[in-house]
Amino acid sequence: MLAARLANGASKAGTDNAFGDEQLDVDLAADEIIFQEFMSCGAVAVAASEEKPVEAPMGGSSERLYSVGFDPLDGSSIIDANFAVGSIFGVWPGDKLLGRTGRQQVASCMSQYGPRTTMAVALSAVTTGGDAVAFELTFQSDVQRWVVTREKFDIAPAGKVFAPGNLRATADQPAYKRLFDHWVDNRYTLRYTGGMVPDVYHILIKNKGVFSNVSSAAAKAKLRLLYECAPIALLIEAAGGASVMAPSPGAASGGTPLSVLDVEIDNLDKRLGLCLGGKEEVDVFNRFMFG
Amino acid sequence: MLAARLANGASKAGTDNAFGDEQLDVDLAADEIIFQEFMSCGAVAVAASEEKPVEAPMGGSSERLYSVGFDPLDGSSIIDANFAVGSIFGVWPGDKLLGRTGRQQVASCMSQYGPRTTMAVALSAVTTGGDAVAFELTFQSDVQRWVVTREKFDIAPAGKVFAPGNLRATADQPAYKRLFDHWVDNRYTLRYTGGMVPDVYHILIKNKGVFSNVSSAAAKAKLRLLYECAPIALLIEAAGGASVMAPSPGAASGGTPLSVLDVEIDNLDKRLGLCLGGKEEVDVFNRFMFG
Repeated sequence: MLAARLANGASKAGTDNAFGDEQLDVDLAADEIIFQEFMSCGAVAVAASEEKPVEAPMGGSSERLYSVGFDPLDGSSIIDANFAVGSIFGVWPGDKLLGRTGRQQVASCMSQYGPRTTMAVALSAVTTGGDAVAFELTFQSDVQRWVVTREKFDIAPAGKVFAPGNLRATADQPAYKRLFDHWVDNRYTLRYTGGMVPDVYHILIKNKGVFSNVSSAAAKAKLRLLYECAPIALLIEAAGGASVMAPSPGAASGGTPLSVLDVEIDNLDKRLGLCLGGKEEVDVFNRFMFG
Repeated sequence: MLAARLANGASKAGTDNAFGDEQLDVDLAADEIIFQEFMSCGAVAVAASEEKPVEAPMGGSSERLYSVGFDPLDGSSIIDANFAVGSIFGVWPGDKLLGRTGRQQVASCMSQYGPRTTMAVALSAVTTGGDAVAFELTFQSDVQRWVVTREKFDIAPAGKVFAPGNLRATADQPAYKRLFDHWVDNRYTLRYTGGMVPDVYHILIKNKGVFSNVSSAAAKAKLRLLYECAPIALLIEAAGGASVMAPSPGAASGGTPLSVLDVEIDNLDKRLGLCLGGKEEVDVFNRFMFG
């Protein structure tokens, strides 16, 4: 339904002088559709979104209740250019979000609206009782149903594909600049749409690569822990990859790398830089950024 | 129709072990659909595609006949990742393609299949009798019709957004490496999906930016003049931007920049490097690459 609304409603975003208001309408329409679904599903206790960053009660009354943090439409800067965009969902057991960590999620999901409508889903170790798993579903519009199109994402430790976010931070973050030069000098393949969903989705589908978003004093971190980073980190780690929180711009070097899944959501709007991808690729990031 | 076929047929491209064959199927299905349309439309004399690079007679018999070069589905490496992809068409008057230049086109078109189905169309100065123009259409699926969503693309001379293609060529092309560093050091915004259609579409929609694809001895030029470069150069120049053929890897420096529209199609499979975008941005490219 969201994909269909996007296909028609968002077309207005391409009209002249309509970037501001119309664009906003699409984000808010997606937000509203998703909150309505949660209100009617019965299993959601509270939900908070990047658009409405408060824990809103969803009236759930089933035996097992969940709490959801979500970004209704990630990639708002590229919607007008008709690039693939997506929604992100993190699901926690119980009735609160504040004070949790990404590792406590039972599942997370990233849907992508491109030529097709697809979805990458992660089930945590808590949920599977064994290893975490991540897989892909695709909506087949001719038969109106979701089908499994990839049974298991399995990210290789090393893989020379890079998505260097917030590249402008290299101008006043020497360590990030050196890491960036390392990727370029070693002939990594560049893929960077500017939307976190497609950029991470590319790593999952190709089973390799690295995504980074590092802040500097002049180029601040923009990614949200609850709505973007934690759900996506669960997907990547469930797919055999690694995640790490980037050091703060002002931090002294030599800090300890911490998985994004272990960062506490101490503020619903908490923002951070990070790196995600193949385990060896994240090790390279750590060497340059924490070394 | 092509977008719908893509939405369902291409979903197979996401299945395990299906990258080769299934992917090919989508490209070929698009090729077949487009050739069939040309055969039945009556106005096409000959057509050649990136998939079938020969001038095939299309049985046209109307008073005014046209010849078409096209890429049925550009961006095959990113279809499985569900990124936006597209088709490219260049239209020439008469009944041949070989020996023509891009400047002789009457029109060109780039359709894009993302969350929406959109199309950027250029009408040449020959066609308008005045200035060339470029505009956008969007298919509204709820009412099944195309509507104009941008009356005029108008690319600003300067604009700090860059899409650096074939980045690996910087490893053995020092001039391209210096240009790349110039973009990074000057805090240009990076957008590079790896598909020429969305990467150029971004410049049109944002009214600014620069796209480059430069070859080196180790990283060859892959873009085709007839099916990709000439139609897209018409779009960019009709939108007020500039295009230039990149110097050959082995060429001595100091050559003269030549618009992509003035390069002769002396081979239906001719390949080249290029730069496209705002006029001042292309001037910067020329200074680094021809200086």
